[in-house]
Amino acid sequence: MVETYDADVVVVGAGLAGLACARALADAGREVVVLEARDRVGGRVWNGTLSDGRTVVELGGQWIGPTQRRVNALVAELGLETFPTFGEGEHLIELGDRRARYRGARPPLPPWVLADLGRAQLRFDRLARQVPLEAPWAADRAEAWDSVTFETWIRRNVATSGARELMRIYAEAVLAVEPRDCSLLHALFYTASGGGIDALTATRRGAQQDRFVGGSELLARRLAERLGDRVRTGVVVRRIGQRERPGGDGEVRVEADGFVARGRDVVVAVPPTLAGRLEYDPPLPPRRDQLTQRIPAGSVIKCHVAYDEPFWRDDGLTGQAVTDRGPVKITFDNSPPSGRPGVLLAFLEGDHARELGAWPAPDRQAVVVEALARLFGRRAARPEEVVELDWSAERFTRGCYGAHLAPGVWTRYGPALRAPVGRIHWAGAETAAVHSGYMDGAITSGERAAAEILAAR
Amino acid sequence: MVETYDADVVVVGAGLAGLACARALADAGREVVVLEARDRVGGRVWNGTLSDGRTVVELGGQWIGPTQRRVNALVAELGLETFPTFGEGEHLIELGDRRARYRGARPPLPPWVLADLGRAQLRFDRLARQVPLEAPWAADRAEAWDSVTFETWIRRNVATSGARELMRIYAEAVLAVEPRDCSLLHALFYTASGGGIDALTATRRGAQQDRFVGGSELLARRLAERLGDRVRTGVVVRRIGQRERPGGDGEVRVEADGFVARGRDVVVAVPPTLAGRLEYDPPLPPRRDQLTQRIPAGSVIKCHVAYDEPFWRDDGLTGQAVTDRGPVKITFDNSPPSGRPGVLLAFLEGDHARELGAWPAPDRQAVVVEALARLFGRRAARPEEVVELDWSAERFTRGCYGAHLAPGVWTRYGPALRAPVGRIHWAGAETAAVHSGYMDGAITSGERAAAEILAAR
Repeated sequence: MVETYDADVVVVGAGLAGLACARALADAGREVVVLEARDRVGGRVWNGTLSDGRTVVELGGQWIGPTQRRVNALVAELGLETFPTFGEGEHLIELGDRRARYRGARPPLPPWVLADLGRAQLRFDRLARQVPLEAPWAADRAEAWDSVTFETWIRRNVATSGARELMRIYAEAVLAVEPRDCSLLHALFYTASGGGIDALTATRRGAQQDRFVGGSELLARRLAERLGDRVRTGVVVRRIGQRERPGGDGEVRVEADGFVARGRDVVVAVPPTLAGRLEYDPPLPPRRDQLTQRIPAGSVIKCHVAYDEPFWRDDGLTGQAVTDRGPVKITFDNSPPSGRPGVLLAFLEGDHARELGAWPAPDRQAVVVEALARLFGRRAARPEEVVELDWSAERFTRGCYGAHLAPGVWTRYGPALRAPVGRIHWAGAETAAVHSGYMDGAITSGERAAAEILAAR
Repeated sequence: MVETYDADVVVVGAGLAGLACARALADAGREVVVLEARDRVGGRVWNGTLSDGRTVVELGGQWIGPTQRRVNALVAELGLETFPTFGEGEHLIELGDRRARYRGARPPLPPWVLADLGRAQLRFDRLARQVPLEAPWAADRAEAWDSVTFETWIRRNVATSGARELMRIYAEAVLAVEPRDCSLLHALFYTASGGGIDALTATRRGAQQDRFVGGSELLARRLAERLGDRVRTGVVVRRIGQRERPGGDGEVRVEADGFVARGRDVVVAVPPTLAGRLEYDPPLPPRRDQLTQRIPAGSVIKCHVAYDEPFWRDDGLTGQAVTDRGPVKITFDNSPPSGRPGVLLAFLEGDHARELGAWPAPDRQAVVVEALARLFGRRAARPEEVVELDWSAERFTRGCYGAHLAPGVWTRYGPALRAPVGRIHWAGAETAAVHSGYMDGAITSGERAAAEILAAR
């Protein structure tokens, strides 16, 4: 038995992009159906809980920043509450054989390292501002920037090993890849899209400023509630067909096991590497198909380590640490608004996620806890529990936070990222010009795809 | 109605890898079935014909070289005939504003360019010899070589613009990508795998030495004939499941529309980027899935331009040209053994294939013919016909000649290229250590996968 659903627009994927797209179309009076492979909405935004069943820990995207205007407006409109990421006290930094506590934005590094880092950041941000966000391939120096890796730029432009390590940690923390994995052009685009290095890395006034009371998944759930039974979960889309008929008429046909949705347009709002695995009839043109061969997802395992209380706060620590000793290089205090229980968030990113992803969970978690004990003292060595997620193992994501582009890809395939193919439109955080890779970018990408369709028909 | 087929081993893909694998297994007494999506065997080896219906022009792989021992042995065993690529007379070279005719291996370049090129090649070949073919990630300097693009190496190590252009043409001609698209480690591995720059680029004593009488597809057809009805064409595999049962027993289940094959092992012998699009149950581990997100195919349009006779031979030309003026940078005399009609083969590769692939065929062909007329004179401007194939548009290939790896991929994901995942084994020219990317590598990769299975059960 094949169930058939007719709509004006079929949306594939009920992450924030797909939901925001569907909502914009529904608000404009279009019939819409959203097909989601998982049994939940939200995609890369997903609430987990600790074993108490109550304390929410976000397994995926969780923060929003003050310059992310669209997501902030949506939060207000949907009546959601946010609270600031905990930041009272001193941060920790470990670099080489030095460990230090500090307040504010500038870590207590040797003056020559600080000067080197400052120069590098200034230079990098200045280059980033030259990237046209809607068309990175059109930057004056796009050819040169797309011929080298970000790592090559670091080696040429950063002199001290300390500052080099911090630039590498920047890539890992923001892109979940190593600086060798992406082109300089990609690193510049992503930095520019997010508003610069400071905006991307900061908690106060930066992309990690605010958290959601009740978890970020609420954003997706509230959007989905408004769409009601137009959102169909557990529907694994396999094939998208499109046909034109004389007179400008035509249709799309989106096939899943036991389910077919028909419409006049389709929006594919899943990560690019998964979009490339669907079957298309007629087959996609070479430029688009070869793009999705070259737009892999990053590697991250997000680990929540829970304690009865956030003991580091009593030690005058924010819970935020940066270290060049792997495998954990970045931590945050991720406790709920009440501050009980205490939760430290430890990221395994890039190479470390790739390597530790293959380890048995207890071994991996032991290494994570050991790193926290080194940073936050022996109380950190005895957590109540660890809740972790390796996004590369998620069948319907296959890597986080988002895609990165190797040398040559932005300049040769970039235009295919958003360009519709007939009646197929592309959404998702990766397709956003502004705040690419973030919740804000996901939402605006969905709304942009909706606008494309509303303008066309 | 679902047709079910039971075998010991199910092979996905009837290219040379899949066929060689199936044959080795059948010879060892195993029941085997080969499932091929197309209605023909051969994969990237495919005979076309001119409009006379008789003159074979190979749309894909066509040459074999004297050091490719396995394919040469198979040619002899299957009773196929080869003939030497036409090479009597003078080659053409265009570089900057100079055009010249020459004999032998060394073009008549200014002495400082020749010296620069010679040094670069010597240095590059020397590095290549340090790459362990079975494990490129284990090279002593793998980290450094996998952190930069091949283009970065060229800029650092080649001083003259002429020699730089020739190194770039090397990447295009051998890998069908630009040197910015792959890591230095990949370029070194591929070069080492093929026996060095000279062996890869030469006709005499090189990888372009010999052609097949009747076309290279005969190799696949002869192998398929011996397998008989064990080869099933028109079967588009979509899903591979595997289950273990207590006691070391277990099975694989390979599903296509209306067809299921069951066995104890499966060999996936399709290009890596297509292998990554199948559904696997259970899902593949992160390392393997993320590998196939990062192993794109190159870009090439192979154009045969036919004339009533090979008029360039009368002008004392071999038909072989190298030029730095795109879009055609490499040509060969590809006439049949009889020398009638005359066929010039022009390659569009890398950036040029990507760009011209989106053009209407008549416009693209006009540009190709114009390039040939510039090189071979006005008789080249009036061909009888043009037969071309854009491999990136082929639904069941999606790019040629083979895959290339960007910075970071060999060192972080390389081991997943061949490592079996339970009962799933991987074959295909990309998985070969020796003559990777060539027919010879395809054959040995299939035989290696067969040996894995024979050793296990």
